[in-house]
Amino acid sequence: MPILRLALAQTNPRLGDFSRNSSQIVNTTIEAYAQGADLVAFGEMSLTGYPIEDLATRPEFLRQCRTTLENIAHELAARGAGQIPVIVGFPHGPLDNHALNAFSPTAIAHNSAAVLQDGRVIGIYNKHHLPNYSVFDEYRIFHPGTDALVIHVAGADVALAICEDIWREGGPVAAIAEVKPSALLVINGSPFEREKDAVRLPLVQRRAEQVNAPVAYLNLVGGQDDLVFDGGSFVVSAAGKLLARAHQFAEHTILVDMTVSDSHSHGRQSGPGVVVVEAGNGHPDRATRPALSPGDLAPQLSINEQIWDALVLGMRDYVEKNGFKSVILGLSGGIDSAVCAALAVDAIGPERVFGVSMPSNYSSDHSRTDADDLAERLGIDIRTEAIAPLVEPIETQLNLVDVAAENLQARIRGIILMGLSNAEGHLVLTTGNKTEIAVGYSTIYGDSVGGFAPIRDVPKTLVWELARWRNEHARRQGLTAPIPENSITKPPSAELRPGQVDQDTLPEYDDLDQMLDAYITHRRSAEEIVALGFDRATVERVISLVDRSEWKRRQGAIGPKISEMAFGRDRRLPVTFTR
Amino acid sequence: MPILRLALAQTNPRLGDFSRNSSQIVNTTIEAYAQGADLVAFGEMSLTGYPIEDLATRPEFLRQCRTTLENIAHELAARGAGQIPVIVGFPHGPLDNHALNAFSPTAIAHNSAAVLQDGRVIGIYNKHHLPNYSVFDEYRIFHPGTDALVIHVAGADVALAICEDIWREGGPVAAIAEVKPSALLVINGSPFEREKDAVRLPLVQRRAEQVNAPVAYLNLVGGQDDLVFDGGSFVVSAAGKLLARAHQFAEHTILVDMTVSDSHSHGRQSGPGVVVVEAGNGHPDRATRPALSPGDLAPQLSINEQIWDALVLGMRDYVEKNGFKSVILGLSGGIDSAVCAALAVDAIGPERVFGVSMPSNYSSDHSRTDADDLAERLGIDIRTEAIAPLVEPIETQLNLVDVAAENLQARIRGIILMGLSNAEGHLVLTTGNKTEIAVGYSTIYGDSVGGFAPIRDVPKTLVWELARWRNEHARRQGLTAPIPENSITKPPSAELRPGQVDQDTLPEYDDLDQMLDAYITHRRSAEEIVALGFDRATVERVISLVDRSEWKRRQGAIGPKISEMAFGRDRRLPVTFTR
Repeated sequence: MPILRLALAQTNPRLGDFSRNSSQIVNTTIEAYAQGADLVAFGEMSLTGYPIEDLATRPEFLRQCRTTLENIAHELAARGAGQIPVIVGFPHGPLDNHALNAFSPTAIAHNSAAVLQDGRVIGIYNKHHLPNYSVFDEYRIFHPGTDALVIHVAGADVALAICEDIWREGGPVAAIAEVKPSALLVINGSPFEREKDAVRLPLVQRRAEQVNAPVAYLNLVGGQDDLVFDGGSFVVSAAGKLLARAHQFAEHTILVDMTVSDSHSHGRQSGPGVVVVEAGNGHPDRATRPALSPGDLAPQLSINEQIWDALVLGMRDYVEKNGFKSVILGLSGGIDSAVCAALAVDAIGPERVFGVSMPSNYSSDHSRTDADDLAERLGIDIRTEAIAPLVEPIETQLNLVDVAAENLQARIRGIILMGLSNAEGHLVLTTGNKTEIAVGYSTIYGDSVGGFAPIRDVPKTLVWELARWRNEHARRQGLTAPIPENSITKPPSAELRPGQVDQDTLPEYDDLDQMLDAYITHRRSAEEIVALGFDRATVERVISLVDRSEWKRRQGAIGPKISEMAFGRDRRLPVTFTR
Repeated sequence: MPILRLALAQTNPRLGDFSRNSSQIVNTTIEAYAQGADLVAFGEMSLTGYPIEDLATRPEFLRQCRTTLENIAHELAARGAGQIPVIVGFPHGPLDNHALNAFSPTAIAHNSAAVLQDGRVIGIYNKHHLPNYSVFDEYRIFHPGTDALVIHVAGADVALAICEDIWREGGPVAAIAEVKPSALLVINGSPFEREKDAVRLPLVQRRAEQVNAPVAYLNLVGGQDDLVFDGGSFVVSAAGKLLARAHQFAEHTILVDMTVSDSHSHGRQSGPGVVVVEAGNGHPDRATRPALSPGDLAPQLSINEQIWDALVLGMRDYVEKNGFKSVILGLSGGIDSAVCAALAVDAIGPERVFGVSMPSNYSSDHSRTDADDLAERLGIDIRTEAIAPLVEPIETQLNLVDVAAENLQARIRGIILMGLSNAEGHLVLTTGNKTEIAVGYSTIYGDSVGGFAPIRDVPKTLVWELARWRNEHARRQGLTAPIPENSITKPPSAELRPGQVDQDTLPEYDDLDQMLDAYITHRRSAEEIVALGFDRATVERVISLVDRSEWKRRQGAIGPKISEMAFGRDRRLPVTFTR
C-alpha cells in the first residue's frame, strides 16, 4: 500500500490576472515540492478565477489561458519541480468542433483540469456535468466532457473529477469506481451558502465509499462579485474518516499522507471512456522523507461566524480586487449601517472606512449620537453633512410633497455619497438588507446608491442576530463590542417623516422574514404560506410587494434589444476582473 | 390531396395575465372557426407570455397554467368551436420526475404545445431543443422532450415543433421527415434582431424541402422587458414558395388553405418516439366552404423601419403592460433625447409624453431652442427647470470640482426627473445610446436614471441614421419631420463644462461603433481589431473602457450571497408581469 503525499492548494485567484495567478501556482508548487509532495492540486478554474462567465466564449482569452498554462509547466521544470504532477483548473479551448454543442452555439471551451509535468501539459480532464441552475450558467459557455482520467503516479491511480461531477448520481463517479482508483481528487469552485458546508462532507463520504478509496475535496476561496468561495477543503479516508481540513475563508495549503491501494492501471493503456496518464514515480525523496504528522484539522466555525466571515471576505475581495483604497457609507445610527460599518472595518481596517452622518429635520437625536458612538467604537472617520439646506431648494422649486419629498431626502443622501466618492475616490457602500430589498422598502437612486451592498442577502432578523454575535465575539476576546446596543434594540425607522417606523407599513420582521423565506427560497404559493399560520391578506400583500419590486432590484433601465449582442441578458461578464 | 385551412394567430400575450390571454385565445379561435379553419394555432408560451424565466420553477404557477388550459378547452366546446384542434403553447408541469433532469435540479416543466379539442387536452408536444445561449436560459428551467407528435386531422398529418427544434440539424425534424407529414407547424417565441428576419425564411424553406411538405412558422409579437417579438409569421409550400406572411410588430391572424398530401398515419397507432393524436375531421363545412383567395402577403419592411418599429413596440408594451399612464424625459436639444421623444410619441401618442428642459450654466442657447423646436414638432408638453440654483448649494457645501461637479449636474437632473415621476406618476425614460453605455460615457445615478431606456441597444451612428430615416418617412407622408435638423447635424456634447464635446474624450463615432461591434458582437481580440485598420492605442483604450464599465451597466450594487436564494444571479424573474 503506497503512501501518497498530496498537497491541496486552496487559493484565491484574481479573475483574469494571469500573471498573479500563475506566480502563485508556481510558488505554491515549489513550496509543496520542498515538503515532499507527490502531487499538487489547485481548484476549479484556479488559473483564471471563477466564474469567468462569457469570457469563456472569447477565443483570445482561451488562447491566453493555454499559453499561461504552458509557461507555468516550463517554469516549474526550470525551477526543479517538474518531476511531480500538478493539477490546475482552466478553461480548455477554443475547440474547433463547437458546432457539436447541442446546447450553446457560442460555447467553445471545456471546464477542465490540466495535468502538468516535466514542462508540459500531459493530460486534460473535461468536466462532465455542467451545472445550469442557481448561480451557474455552465451550459451557456462550456461543452460537457466524456472521458474519465486517471493519473498513474508513484504506483497509485488518482482519478480526477470537477465539482458538479460528484453531485450527480450515476455521473463519472460510477465509471471511476470501475477502474478501482487509489484515490479520487475533486477540484471545486463551490460558493458559500448557509448550511452548505454541512452537506459537502456526507456527500464526499458517500463517494469515498462508492469508489472505495480516499477522496480529496479541494475548493477555491475568495470573493468574486456576489459569490464567496469559502474554502474548507478536506480529505476523507475510504471509510469516510476526516483526515484533514483547511481553514474556511482564507488561503491555505494542506499536505496529507494518504495510505492508498496499489494501482490497477499499471501497464494498462487508455481504453474507451478512460484516459490513463503516466505521471512518474512521485517525489524523488518519497522513500526517505519522514512521515507527516496527522493532517491539519481546522476548527469548525459556528454558522454565524461562517456568515460573518463570508460577508467580510466578500467585501474585502470586492474592494481589493477592484483596486479601491477606501469605502464610504452613510451612518444613520440604525442597525443596517452599523453592521455594514463593522463588516467594513473587519474587511479592510478602520483607517480605510469613512462614515457620513446626514441628518435631516426628521432625524432623531439618537440617530446622531448612535452614529458617533459607532464611529468611536470602530475608530473610523465620521463627518456630518446636514441635508436640509440641500433638500429645500429642490422641494420648493419642484413642489414636492409626501412620498416624492421623502424620496428626495434619500436621493440627496445618495448624491452626497456619490459626490464624496467622485471627489475622494471611495467605494460607496449601500446598506440595504435582504428584507427591505425584497419588499422594495427603499428609494431607488436614494439609499440604494452604491457599488457594493454588504448585507444585500442578509434578512433583517439575521442582521440583528449577526450584530449580537459580533458584539459577543468581541467581548469573549476582551475587546470593545463594535455595535452600539441602542442601534440593536431601538425600533427600526427610515426617519423620512416625523415619528415614522418600519412597522407602520411592514409586518413584524420575524413574520416577514419567514414569509419571504417561504415565498422566495422555497417557492411556496400564497395558499401554502397561509397554511404556515399567517394572515391571508398580509401574505398576499407581501407577495405583491416582492413581485412588484423586481424593477427596483434592477436599477439599470431595461431597453429593447435590436442587435445580436445587447448588454444585459446577452452578455454576462464579471465586474471584478483584471483586464 | 386534402386542403387544410390553417389559422395562425400571431398574438401579443401579457406575461402572467391568464384571464386576458385565455379570452384572446377563445375569441380568436371562435373567429377562425367562423371562417372555416380546420386547425388554429397560437405561438410558443402563448398561454402565459414568454419568456417566463424562473416562474416555470414555481409549482403553483404551473398548476394555474394547466387549469387555465382546461378552462379554455371547456369554453371552446361550450361555445361550439370544440370540433377543431387548437394548439396553444404553455409550460407543462409540475413534473414529478424532475430528479431526472441532468441539467437543472429546479426544472420541473417542459416547454410544450397542447392540442385542445372537444373540451379536453388531447395531446401534448414537449420541445426537444432547449436554447441556452444569448438571451435564452431554457436548460435552467425546462426539461427536454423526446417524442415527435403528429395530429391526424381532416385526413392529413400535421407534425408539431417548437422554435429551436427546427434550428438544429439532426433534431426532431429528421424524425418528423420519416413519418412523411402532410404539413409541419412550428410555433415560436423568436425575438427580433436586425437581419434575423432574413435568416428565418431560408431556414424554413430548407425544412420544407426536408420534410417534403408545407411549413407554417408562427411567431409571437410584442415587447417583454428587453425583448421584442416581431411577429412576421409565414407559410411556405413544400417547394419553398412563400404562401402567406403576417405583419411584423402587430397582432395578426392569417388564414391559409394548404394543399397537403394524404395522411400516412391513418389507422396507425402511436409508436416508439412518435405520438399520433386523432383530432377528427376538421371543420364541419370543409366540403362546402368557398376556397380562400391567396393568403395575405404583408409587405416587407426596410431594415430601418423594422428597427424603428421594434423600438416603438418595445416601449409601448413596457409602458402599457406595466400600467404607466405617461412618460417623462429630459430634452437636451441633442439627438438622443430627440429620438427617444419621437419614439415615445409613436409608441403612446404626444399627450402622454412630457419633456423637461434642464439647462445649466454651461448649456448652449441651442440646447433650449432645439428642445423647444422638438416639443413643438411632436406636440408634447415641455417645461423648464433650471438646475443652477439646485446644484450650487451642494457644490458649495461639499466643495465639489471637476468630474465630481460635472456628475453632480447630471445627478440633479436625475433627481428632478425622479421627483416629477414620484409626484405625477410618469415612467422616466433614460436616453443613453449603446455607444455611450458601452464605454461608460455617462453619470451613474445621473443621466442613466430611469425605468426604460429606449435606445439602449442603438449605437450612436444608428441613432443618427434612424433620425434621418424617421424624418424622411414623415416627409414622404407629407407630415412634419419630427426631429429638428439641428439636433441631427450639430456636434454631440454632454454640456457639463464650457465648450465640451464628446470627441474631446472619445474617438469619432464612426470608428468607435466599428470597434465596439468588432469587440462586443464579434468577440474580436485587440490584435484583430487593429488589423481592421484602427490605431492600436485607441483600440486598447476602447476595450479598456468597455471592460471597466461593466459595473456601471449594473447599477444595482453587488452584494455577497450567503443564502440558497439571493436576488440577482439566483432568481430570474420578468419585470413586466401581471401578478
